[in-house]
Amino acid sequence: MSEAPRFELFAFWRTSATYRVRVALNLKGIAAEERIVDIDANEQRGAAFLAINPLGAIPALIDRGAGQSRAPLTQSLAILEFLDEEYPEPALLPPDPHGRARVRAIAAMLAGDTHPLITPRVRKYLTGTGGFDDAAWRAWQIHWFTTGLQAVEHRLVSEAETRGFCHGDAVTLADICLASIIAVMRIFRIEIPGIPTIERIMRDCEAHPAFAKADPMIQVGAPR
Amino acid sequence: MSEAPRFELFAFWRTSATYRVRVALNLKGIAAEERIVDIDANEQRGAAFLAINPLGAIPALIDRGAGQSRAPLTQSLAILEFLDEEYPEPALLPPDPHGRARVRAIAAMLAGDTHPLITPRVRKYLTGTGGFDDAAWRAWQIHWFTTGLQAVEHRLVSEAETRGFCHGDAVTLADICLASIIAVMRIFRIEIPGIPTIERIMRDCEAHPAFAKADPMIQVGAPR
Repeated sequence: MSEAPRFELFAFWRTSATYRVRVALNLKGIAAEERIVDIDANEQRGAAFLAINPLGAIPALIDRGAGQSRAPLTQSLAILEFLDEEYPEPALLPPDPHGRARVRAIAAMLAGDTHPLITPRVRKYLTGTGGFDDAAWRAWQIHWFTTGLQAVEHRLVSEAETRGFCHGDAVTLADICLASIIAVMRIFRIEIPGIPTIERIMRDCEAHPAFAKADPMIQVGAPR
Repeated sequence: MSEAPRFELFAFWRTSATYRVRVALNLKGIAAEERIVDIDANEQRGAAFLAINPLGAIPALIDRGAGQSRAPLTQSLAILEFLDEEYPEPALLPPDPHGRARVRAIAAMLAGDTHPLITPRVRKYLTGTGGFDDAAWRAWQIHWFTTGLQAVEHRLVSEAETRGFCHGDAVTLADICLASIIAVMRIFRIEIPGIPTIERIMRDCEAHPAFAKADPMIQVGAPR
């Protein structure tokens, strides 16, 4: 009999932030028990989950190795940095400070500047209070995906550090964030023109087992 | 005569992200030459600035010590992590991985979940394409400031790591991000109820010279 894994991951099949954590766990070969929190049924706001994470946010990662009184780890980028500190191989950040800053900046352009604008809570506000109909919401999504991805494309094309992946020839935080945005766009059937470098990098990511295993469409809870 | 400082900071008096970088530079005693990019006059989209940073984003930090071909550092949190790696004292992150994850998560709740929703580019979309009038924009701002700050308050109140500052008794990334949101709210004359812990921490931050010197209202370009 094998021991219970160190981590417990509260997750949902579709969310971009959960995807990022799954890819990082897969890359580093870290086992985690997954617990599904059904966002479509608003379970993240239910009493059962709020007892675990009072913030009602997923992904949430519980470190069972760290004693029982600790709050779960939250926020995908903070979780990825934590995993990279605890399990340094393979590294998700390059060794030099300028390279690390570049990777973190690209990750922030995606997970920070782009993703927060297209989350379910923003949809709820805009289609409720904001008076957006479905077409206006879709135009909003397309606008921010386009803005964010074309800015990243511009950066990738114009900077010499871009190679097989966003930074050099190994997967970093930047590729994980990029793939997490593209994965959500696929679910919403949104395509953006003018991003050939991103498309090239995504082909290599999608062929990588750590990304393939994190594909939202094959997770528990995904539509058939 | 003194040498030119290592860094050049492209900045604007009012922006939350610029404020974060100013506080970190002040805390660590790092000199930077400031160049004003007037967002109200759309200078970030002008040819002069795009030649420096093709992304048209501020803050942008140029490291003159690193050779001329490097792209400027962008994204405030990536810049803060860079400064913390290059100038470790005083540290902006605690030494233990769980503490670092907590600080980065609180920072991300503010700089990642909250701030991107109230930026000028979102205002432009909502008041243009989105059909929001001034009252609707203000209600939107208040909604997201309230959501973000009350979630952080909940976390600060319920977790034992909160002490004089958000994490322990020294300033971290979390306090810098918190102060950056509060500073912008003050400019917009927005007040949020139910955040006594945040208000207590902010009083100590504002009394700290590194924060006081970064006050948007005393920067070049601020209204008198």
